[in-house]
Amino acid sequence: MAFQPYQASMLALGQAPSVIRETFEYGLRRAQEIGRENVFDFSLGNPSVPAPPSVHDTMRRLMDETDSVLLHGYTSAIGAEPTRAAIAADINARFHAGISAQDLYMTCGAAASLTVTLHAILCPGDTCMTFAPFFPEYRVFVESAGAKLTQVPADTENFQMNLQAFAELITPETKAVIVNTPNNPTGVVYTEENLRAFCKLLHEKELEYGHPVYLIADEPYRELVYDDTTVVPYLPNLYDNTFVCYSYSKSLSLPGERIGYIVVSPKMQDSRLVYAAVCGAGRALGFVCAPSLMQRVVAENLGKTADLSVYRRNRDLLYKNLTDYGYRCIYPDGAFYLWVQALEDDANAFCRKARDYELLLVPSDSFGCKGFVRIAYCVTTEMIERSLPAFKKLAEAYGK
Amino acid sequence: MAFQPYQASMLALGQAPSVIRETFEYGLRRAQEIGRENVFDFSLGNPSVPAPPSVHDTMRRLMDETDSVLLHGYTSAIGAEPTRAAIAADINARFHAGISAQDLYMTCGAAASLTVTLHAILCPGDTCMTFAPFFPEYRVFVESAGAKLTQVPADTENFQMNLQAFAELITPETKAVIVNTPNNPTGVVYTEENLRAFCKLLHEKELEYGHPVYLIADEPYRELVYDDTTVVPYLPNLYDNTFVCYSYSKSLSLPGERIGYIVVSPKMQDSRLVYAAVCGAGRALGFVCAPSLMQRVVAENLGKTADLSVYRRNRDLLYKNLTDYGYRCIYPDGAFYLWVQALEDDANAFCRKARDYELLLVPSDSFGCKGFVRIAYCVTTEMIERSLPAFKKLAEAYGK
Repeated sequence: MAFQPYQASMLALGQAPSVIRETFEYGLRRAQEIGRENVFDFSLGNPSVPAPPSVHDTMRRLMDETDSVLLHGYTSAIGAEPTRAAIAADINARFHAGISAQDLYMTCGAAASLTVTLHAILCPGDTCMTFAPFFPEYRVFVESAGAKLTQVPADTENFQMNLQAFAELITPETKAVIVNTPNNPTGVVYTEENLRAFCKLLHEKELEYGHPVYLIADEPYRELVYDDTTVVPYLPNLYDNTFVCYSYSKSLSLPGERIGYIVVSPKMQDSRLVYAAVCGAGRALGFVCAPSLMQRVVAENLGKTADLSVYRRNRDLLYKNLTDYGYRCIYPDGAFYLWVQALEDDANAFCRKARDYELLLVPSDSFGCKGFVRIAYCVTTEMIERSLPAFKKLAEAYGK
Repeated sequence: MAFQPYQASMLALGQAPSVIRETFEYGLRRAQEIGRENVFDFSLGNPSVPAPPSVHDTMRRLMDETDSVLLHGYTSAIGAEPTRAAIAADINARFHAGISAQDLYMTCGAAASLTVTLHAILCPGDTCMTFAPFFPEYRVFVESAGAKLTQVPADTENFQMNLQAFAELITPETKAVIVNTPNNPTGVVYTEENLRAFCKLLHEKELEYGHPVYLIADEPYRELVYDDTTVVPYLPNLYDNTFVCYSYSKSLSLPGERIGYIVVSPKMQDSRLVYAAVCGAGRALGFVCAPSLMQRVVAENLGKTADLSVYRRNRDLLYKNLTDYGYRCIYPDGAFYLWVQALEDDANAFCRKARDYELLLVPSDSFGCKGFVRIAYCVTTEMIERSLPAFKKLAEAYGK
């Protein structure tokens, strides 16, 4: 075989244009041309509210009170015991889940939670499933773990999990299913009914196949829900063979600090062996330990969140006005995304047209679903207010 | 094939006993039995001096002056441009290396620097070489990237790179060679003469094979050298196809914070394509970005180091006394390790015997070399002083 100076698949990933990133970069260039205040960039899912003040209070106190060698030293590869114990206690207080410190593995954020989990369980020949629309990096993570991603077509009415299509696509080679609620890109929270039906079906398949099918709950948006009535069920309570992949990026507005965790449910079959495989995967991928200062910071800020009222206000403002203008919007219970049907069949063409009005939206194709756009409303309310006339004109251009 | 509930290789890694970790855990138990002051634990390479005060000064100032959303937000996947530009300028001021910001990729520490680099370049069928004794995780990282590690036997006289053995073992399948100077576990700094001869040989092999053979310089200990005359040559200046994998863990005593970088030498063949593959590998492994606050902190603390005088004092104290007691010690120019010949052929048996004197040493076998022990002297000087009678008695037990 000819010499390859680099891994071809890694080069492809490094060169692959991300539509989200490309849209964001376009926005930066456009802002230089016409002024930042005239560009309405809804492309990035980057929290727009500060971390709660207690985060910096904790950091200052830790620097004052804690020996530097301890504060910034290696923790155990699985994470500091006090941090894991505090998180387990918080989970149990909220969800009565029976988690203990030994079931938790601290990570460098949600992406690491997923790659470590996937590398721990996926073998060549396995498939991993997920429900469209979905975060496009799932495909990258599953394939880099040596397996294949199967996407379940979207339920384009309600954007709940499409269980009928799922039942038709699952096979004995299915090792795991990634479930993301509150959902990126739709903002939809899967209903308890939908989740219970899914778990029942999944468990039937386990019995039929004679082996576990893991449920991977990717839930960085768990705390980002806006109506008091919204319930995000805790999946280890509904299904034994569950991993929870969490990150503090959104709840504490610390996305750059790379801090999160994996729960390996103690009810999982061979739970301790699977946990050991998680440890092995973390080691093989080079994670060593989650950032040590942030491990202490999150342990002392459990139950706190960034000020979510801005996101709620943004959601209400966009949903109401865009609906008034004639757009079909899926009502978002959580996350900070609004999912809107494009006003022509081709979402890419619609997004190009939107750029004429300086509206930067992300077409749905890269999320595994055609004909919609994602509007990330983690922006200032002022920008949304300024953008409304543009949304109105765009609708009018399509005869709405 | 039978269903596997986990990746067997990951389980094996998660369950594999690390001799270093096992020794450390033994020390903790032993300390509970006989008191911490009576156990002499030299097992772990964990910095024992605090971060320089300027690190906390910088953190406090950044919290006071910088918008939280910017301070803790995602940076570009390759790292913040100002950080990369500052590091490149510092490298060029010290080594005249012609590096620019676009050649740097910020990482979550040295292990991540290595796994991302290895995943970027290694293909199935490739081998990666390194020189014994070596950091045992190299094998884990190379194998998890799908390639094979070939270890070059140690030069047990001087613990420089054994170039004769290297020349016999390199093959056209050799894609890369990892070089670690100052060295873990020996503390030896490879001489400029040794490195130049190695680079010359490597380049001849490139010409012979008609393809690049990458040099991966793993140098987290670069700043930890104790004699003013010690020179650690900058490898991109000696060899074009070089990666530098760096970490601030040791130089700034921030091992838990996971911050480092990769340099892809601009002189490397297809440098921009290889850099793109590095970006792809970081993405595939789930790194997203290096911790954002620490990216700013290191950029403002370039050229600073933790107080290395403690390590120098420890080195001098141990080297002089152990040599006096009759041990053969390899003189360490850098890092914080002393490499000592065991007083019997079996280093494991010698380490068990040392435990009778409460001395916790790491046998050399796991570093790919028999008959020696590693003494990590990143401990308090007081502990070393208390341990000296035990080292003396251990030598006497062997008739020294």
